[in-house]
Formats: sequence, structure tokens, C-alpha cells
Amino acid sequence: MTNPTAAMLVIGDEILSGRTRDANMHHLAGELTAAGITLAEVRIVADDHDVIVDAVKALAARYDTVFSSGGIGPTHDDITADCMAAAFGQRIDVREDARAILQAHYDKAGTEMNEARLRMARIPDDAKLIENPVSSAPGFTIENVHVMAGVPSVFKAMVASVLPTLTGGAPLISKTLTVHRGEGDIAGPLGDLAAAYPGLSMGSYPFQRDGKYGSNIVVRGKDAALLDEAMTQLEAAFA
Amino acid sequence: MTNPTAAMLVIGDEILSGRTRDANMHHLAGELTAAGITLAEVRIVADDHDVIVDAVKALAARYDTVFSSGGIGPTHDDITADCMAAAFGQRIDVREDARAILQAHYDKAGTEMNEARLRMARIPDDAKLIENPVSSAPGFTIENVHVMAGVPSVFKAMVASVLPTLTGGAPLISKTLTVHRGEGDIAGPLGDLAAAYPGLSMGSYPFQRDGKYGSNIVVRGKDAALLDEAMTQLEAAFA
Repeated sequence: MTNPTAAMLVIGDEILSGRTRDANMHHLAGELTAAGITLAEVRIVADDHDVIVDAVKALAARYDTVFSSGGIGPTHDDITADCMAAAFGQRIDVREDARAILQAHYDKAGTEMNEARLRMARIPDDAKLIENPVSSAPGFTIENVHVMAGVPSVFKAMVASVLPTLTGGAPLISKTLTVHRGEGDIAGPLGDLAAAYPGLSMGSYPFQRDGKYGSNIVVRGKDAALLDEAMTQLEAAFA
Repeated sequence: MTNPTAAMLVIGDEILSGRTRDANMHHLAGELTAAGITLAEVRIVADDHDVIVDAVKALAARYDTVFSSGGIGPTHDDITADCMAAAFGQRIDVREDARAILQAHYDKAGTEMNEARLRMARIPDDAKLIENPVSSAPGFTIENVHVMAGVPSVFKAMVASVLPTLTGGAPLISKTLTVHRGEGDIAGPLGDLAAAYPGLSMGSYPFQRDGKYGSNIVVRGKDAALLDEAMTQLEAAFA
């Protein structure tokens, strides 16, 4: 049985320009792997309406679940909600349930609601709100796409509230064997072992440390017993 | 005049599983921005032949230049070179020029050439080799795609040899104003200023520090005088 698949769409000029280093992708990748959901593809795109709409449509059609991050704040460059509505042919406007959440938050903080803040209550008609325990402005789920904030603390909180609602597969277990030889030396026997265990995935990640070559061989799979067996074989091959 | 566009294709299960955090994308993003080339899209895909071929074709058709990283080593999971050949309908086999480079490297190191190492000399017929001063196994350029290693030190070296061959636009300059107010307060005036300077791009990146909200307003553009003017206006608006 194959695990459910997911994709991530990172919306943000600031990552493409090299200004910011993405942290959300790495976090989501780890969480999904632990939940038995295969993160199959990530796309990072600019704050461009047509590009975002095309990417959402392509990913939502190809994978079971899509997670997006970024572009749901109050400023003019926050266009994600409108793009999501366009991608799924839904109407979008300020929604009363989202407005009430924001109003309560600003009342408590003694902050005034203004036009910009009200933009964060723009939610597509048939979307379901995602709670934001950090700064209240909600994300939303539209069809199979979870639309979340780009601020890492908010993104993490939203992932935590969405993940338990998804059906995962068996968690992927991974074991690593560090071999102090270059990949060219281990490639032959490793290829043979990979062929002998089609139910596991074996990857080799070379490194150079103190001027010497080595490789981390990572074996991944869902069957713990099979994984142990393969690791024993690997250790014997590279002892 | 718009700058040339680029995309990056990261090939690597290890990033999608959350095991490794990508460093190459962040490096390339900064280098391209400095060279006046717009990094418009990044895709991260698994070590899967069809997915890689589809992604290369889509990105090569849409952007001026594509950079790939990963999957050109000697192990069974290194399938990038064959995917690139398939994407562009070229024949691929061990090429004499690449073999000679590897042979010289192994002779010098006193290492034996074997079948696995020879895989790294598999280069599509019409590709041009990219020098690898770190560990010798070359990358290659096929059509508008630069195929490079995933090991960060090698990736960096290959970027350094490819970049001077590309025609960039005017470098993108960016200036940042840190404002100790939440995005909801600055969104209105910022949107007005963004509309007044269509030749510049203005983005707002919220942060939370010591329990207080703030925003980094980043203005990007190629005209230094215009940028200075806009920064003066911004500073006046948020003083």
C-alpha cells in the first residue's frame, strides 16, 4: 500500500531573491514523513497571480494534499487568498466568521480594525478556516489545499492543527549507515542490495570531512523488520 | 527592460523527506540576484525518472536558464544525466572527454576506476562539460539547462564557473526598512507607495520579536536613484 502524497507550494519573492532562507519546507517535510505522508514535490514561486494559480491547479490535481505557505497577510503583495479562489472558481469576499475572529483579537489588543487588516478576512466561499493560535488571522482549507501563513511560528501552529485531520500511511522509518569510503567504492554493492530490497529505498549522500570522502547510506521503508535485515546486510558489505 | 529569468530544479529525496535542509537553492538565489538574473521558480522533486523529465521540460521551456542540482554521482539512485538526455531527446553514453578527466583524477589519487565511477562519465551527446575543481566528476550544460552536483561545495564551484558565461541584466538592488509596527498598520500607506512606484517592487515581511510585531519592508529595483527616493518617502511615512 502506498502512502498518501503531498506537495508544498511556497509563495514568496523573498526566498527566490535569496533574502530569506526557507524554514517552513524543512519543518513540513519532517512532519509529513513522521505522519506517513510522502512529500513528493515542492514548488517555490513568486508573488504572481497567474503563476500561483497555475501551480495550485497542477499540484492539487496531481497529489492528495497540497500545503501552501505565504501571502495571506494584510499588505498589497498578499494575493494568495484571491489566487486560491480563482484556481477553484470560488467567489471570495470578507467572510463574517473570519471577520469576527479578527475583531475579537483586535478588541482584546486595543488595536483598531482597518481596511488592510480586514483583507485578512477575505476567504473563499466554500473554504474551511484553519485556526491561528499565534496571531489569530486564519488560514483556510479549499478543496485539498491547506492555505497557511509564511511566518514560521504561525505556519508551524497551522500545520499542527491540520495534520491530525489527515489520514497518513505507515510512518516512514529511516536508518543511516556512515561509511568512510567514497561513493565510487560503495556504488556497486549498494546497487546490488537496493535491487535485492525493492520494498526499501536506499540513497547515498556523499560528504567530505577532514579531506576524506565518506557517504551516508540512508535506507527508508515502512517495514521495521525488513529495514533491520537490510541494515545488517549493509553493515556486512561495508565492514 | 526585464532581466533574464532562471529556474532551479533540485533533485533529491533527502530534502523532501526532511533529512537534509537544502543549501544550494539559497546560494544560487543570492548569486543570481547579484548577477541581475531573476530566479523565478524552484521545484524540488524526488529521484523519479518521469517526474524529473517532465519538470526539466516545463522549466526549460518557460525560463531562459535552468540550473539543476543533485543526482549525478556514481550510485544507482543517480539518474539525472539519463533524465536530461531523455528530456532533450539526446543519446547518452560514457563520453571519452569525461572519462579522461575522471581517469586522470583517479590515477593521481591512486584510486581504481570501476563501473560505478565510470557512470559519472555518462554525458549526453551534445552537452558541454562543466568543470568540477573539487572532485573532478564534471557537470554539463544541455540546451539551456546547467546540470550540477548536489554536494554543496561542488555545486558552488560549478555555479562559479557557469555564471560568468551568462548574460545578466542590471543587478537588482534591495533596501530594507525595519518598522516596529505590525503589518496591519503599515499596509495602507505601503500599498499607496507601491502603486506610486510601479518600477520598484515593495514587499513586507512581518516578524515578532520580544512579543512585539514589526515588519521589514524590502524595496527592490534596478534604478538606484529611484530606490533612494522611494526609501526617503517610506522613512517619512513610517517615521
